[in-house]
Amino acid sequence: MLKTPSEHGIPQSSNFSIVDSVVDPSELPSEGGLLVRALFFSADPYLRGHVRSGRPSSIAVGNPIRGFIAGRIEASTINDWKVGDLFGASLPFSTVQIVSLKALRSTAFWKLSDHLTEATLSLGVGVLGMPGATAFGGLMDVLRPVKGETLLVTAASGAVGQLVGQLAKLKGCKVIGTAGGPEKCKLLIEKFNFDAAIDHKSCSNPAQLEALIRSSAPEGLNMVFENVGTTTFETAYRCLAIGGRIAVCGAIAAYNEKQESIPLCSIDPMQMIYTSQRIEGFVCTPWLVGARGGNEWIRVLSEGVKSGDIKVTESFYDGIERWPDAFADLFLGNNVGKVVVRV
Amino acid sequence: MLKTPSEHGIPQSSNFSIVDSVVDPSELPSEGGLLVRALFFSADPYLRGHVRSGRPSSIAVGNPIRGFIAGRIEASTINDWKVGDLFGASLPFSTVQIVSLKALRSTAFWKLSDHLTEATLSLGVGVLGMPGATAFGGLMDVLRPVKGETLLVTAASGAVGQLVGQLAKLKGCKVIGTAGGPEKCKLLIEKFNFDAAIDHKSCSNPAQLEALIRSSAPEGLNMVFENVGTTTFETAYRCLAIGGRIAVCGAIAAYNEKQESIPLCSIDPMQMIYTSQRIEGFVCTPWLVGARGGNEWIRVLSEGVKSGDIKVTESFYDGIERWPDAFADLFLGNNVGKVVVRV
Repeated sequence: MLKTPSEHGIPQSSNFSIVDSVVDPSELPSEGGLLVRALFFSADPYLRGHVRSGRPSSIAVGNPIRGFIAGRIEASTINDWKVGDLFGASLPFSTVQIVSLKALRSTAFWKLSDHLTEATLSLGVGVLGMPGATAFGGLMDVLRPVKGETLLVTAASGAVGQLVGQLAKLKGCKVIGTAGGPEKCKLLIEKFNFDAAIDHKSCSNPAQLEALIRSSAPEGLNMVFENVGTTTFETAYRCLAIGGRIAVCGAIAAYNEKQESIPLCSIDPMQMIYTSQRIEGFVCTPWLVGARGGNEWIRVLSEGVKSGDIKVTESFYDGIERWPDAFADLFLGNNVGKVVVRV
Repeated sequence: MLKTPSEHGIPQSSNFSIVDSVVDPSELPSEGGLLVRALFFSADPYLRGHVRSGRPSSIAVGNPIRGFIAGRIEASTINDWKVGDLFGASLPFSTVQIVSLKALRSTAFWKLSDHLTEATLSLGVGVLGMPGATAFGGLMDVLRPVKGETLLVTAASGAVGQLVGQLAKLKGCKVIGTAGGPEKCKLLIEKFNFDAAIDHKSCSNPAQLEALIRSSAPEGLNMVFENVGTTTFETAYRCLAIGGRIAVCGAIAAYNEKQESIPLCSIDPMQMIYTSQRIEGFVCTPWLVGARGGNEWIRVLSEGVKSGDIKVTESFYDGIERWPDAFADLFLGNNVGKVVVRV
C-alpha cells in the first residue's frame, strides 16, 4: 500500500509498505465472483502519476497500489471462468483477492489460458498485457502506419517501445529508436531489428538529438511514438514530415517533476495546417478491454511471439518486497524491457 | 499578378497589378481542354501565406495570383463539360483562360450547374467552394462531432466559421463562437443559431477570454475549430475537456507576422495522454477534389442552403481592381462572411 506519496524525484522503498490481511474464500459472492491469485505484479512508469499528491488519479495514503497483474483463478462462481484459468487484469496489488462480478465489469480483465502457461504468464503483464495493448493500439489505430513510412520510437528499449518498433517493422516501416546508452541501442538493432538507434545520453542538448534524428531520417518523420516528453517531444515534433503524426503515449522525463515545474512544449499550429500534422494522446484502455478492435491486439501479439517475429525482454524482481526497487529502476534507466515482479 | 510581396502587415493595392494578355480560343487543345470565364474571384485569408517571400508556397513576383474562382465554360473539347456549365476551381486569377485536360486533372475543379445558376454562382467560392469543403471536412471528418458535445469556433463570423457552427448545430451540438465586435456576435446568435458568442475585442488578455469560454462552456470544450492561432489557440487548448480535439484550420492572427516573429503555442503532452486529446491540422483539398467522402460535402451544403437550414452572408466587391481591397479587409476585420469579388 501507499505509505507516503513521492512528491518529487525517484520513488523510494520508504514510500511503500506491505500489510497482511485475511481473505475468506467463503465470502465469494454466489451471484458471481472470482477468487484470484496474483503470480506477477507489473511495474510501469505511468504509475508515477498516481503515486503523488493533488491529482484526480492520486492513490490515497493507506490504500493499496492498483496496477496490472497476471494470475490464476482459484475459485469461481462465474460461468466464463473456471479454476486454473490464467488472466491479466488491472487490480489492487494483493496476492490473493476476491473480485466481484461488478468489479470485474468495471476493470480490464482478460483471459490468457489460450495463449500462455504458468511458466510464461509473466508475458501477461507485458506483451499480452498493458504494454502490448498500448503498443498495438497506439501504432495501428493512432499512428496508422503505411508501408515504407519512417517511425521514431522514443524510450524504444522499454516494455512498450520495443513492441512498437517490432510491430512497425512487420508493417514494412523504417524504424528508428532512442534509448539511453550503447547497450540498449545495440539491443534495438540486434534483437529488435530496428533500422537505427540513437543514444540520447550521447546528446548534451536538443540540437544534437535533432541532428542525429535528421541524419537517420533525412526524409523526415512520418510517425513518432512518443514516451519521453519535454525537449524530446519538441525535437521529434520539429522533424515531422508532411502528414506526420505523433502518438503521445508517455512522458517519462516529466513524471518525476513537480506539477508546477513540468515544462510545456512548443508547437506551431500554423505549420500543422498545410502539413496536415496531428498530435494525439491516448491510453491503452479501449484496446485492453476490447472496445476497439476486439481481441485483435492479443491475437496478433501472441502469434508474433509464437512465430518468433516478436521478441521480448523482461527484467525480473523476486518477491513483492522488491516492487519499490523495480518501480524506481524504471526512472533510473536500470531496466531493459518489461519490469516484472514475481510474487 | 503579384507586383511586390507583402512582407509584413496588411497587404496593399500597391502590392498588386492588373495586366492585359490575349487568349486565343483557337488554341483550345483538341485532345481535351476548356475555355473558361471567371465570374467571381475569391479573397481568402490563407492566400496571405502565398503573398510573401521565402516560403515553398510563395507566389513569385510577376506571376498571377492563384486562388479560387467560380465561372462558366465558354468552349470545351472534353465530354464531361459543355458550354454554359458552371464550375468552381482553383486557378490563376485570369478573367478568361484555357485549361488543358492535364491542368484540370492536377487542380480542384468541380461542377456547380446542378446546384447553382449564374445569379447564385458567387456561392461557388463560398458555401459550395473552398470554405464549404473546409467547414464540412474539418467538422465531420477531423472533429467528428457527437450529439450533445460542445464546440468552440474561433473567427466564427468568417466564411468558414459560420458554416462550421451551422453544420454543428444540425448535428445536435452546443456551439460557441468568437468574433470581433458586437455586430458580428449578434449575427452569430440571431442569424446562424449559435448558442453563445464571445466578443474577443472585449478581452484585453487571454485570461479574460478563458473566463468567457469557461463561463459559456463550464463542461469544457469537446471540440475546437481553430482559425485564429497564437494566444487564442492556447486559450482554447486550456479549456479542452477529456477526449477534446482541435481541428487547426487557420491562424489569421499570425498570417501578417514575419516568419521569425510567429509565436509558438504551448501545450502539455502529458495532459494529452490521460485525456486522449488530439490536435490536428488539415486543408480542404481531399474533400474539395472528392478524395474523402466523394461529393457528400457539396450535397449536404447545397441541400442545407436550399432548405434554409444553412444561411450565408457575403460581402461583395465589384471589379477585379477591388480584389486587393477585398483581400486587405479580411485582415482588418471589415468583412462579414464570405468576401467575393464580382468580375
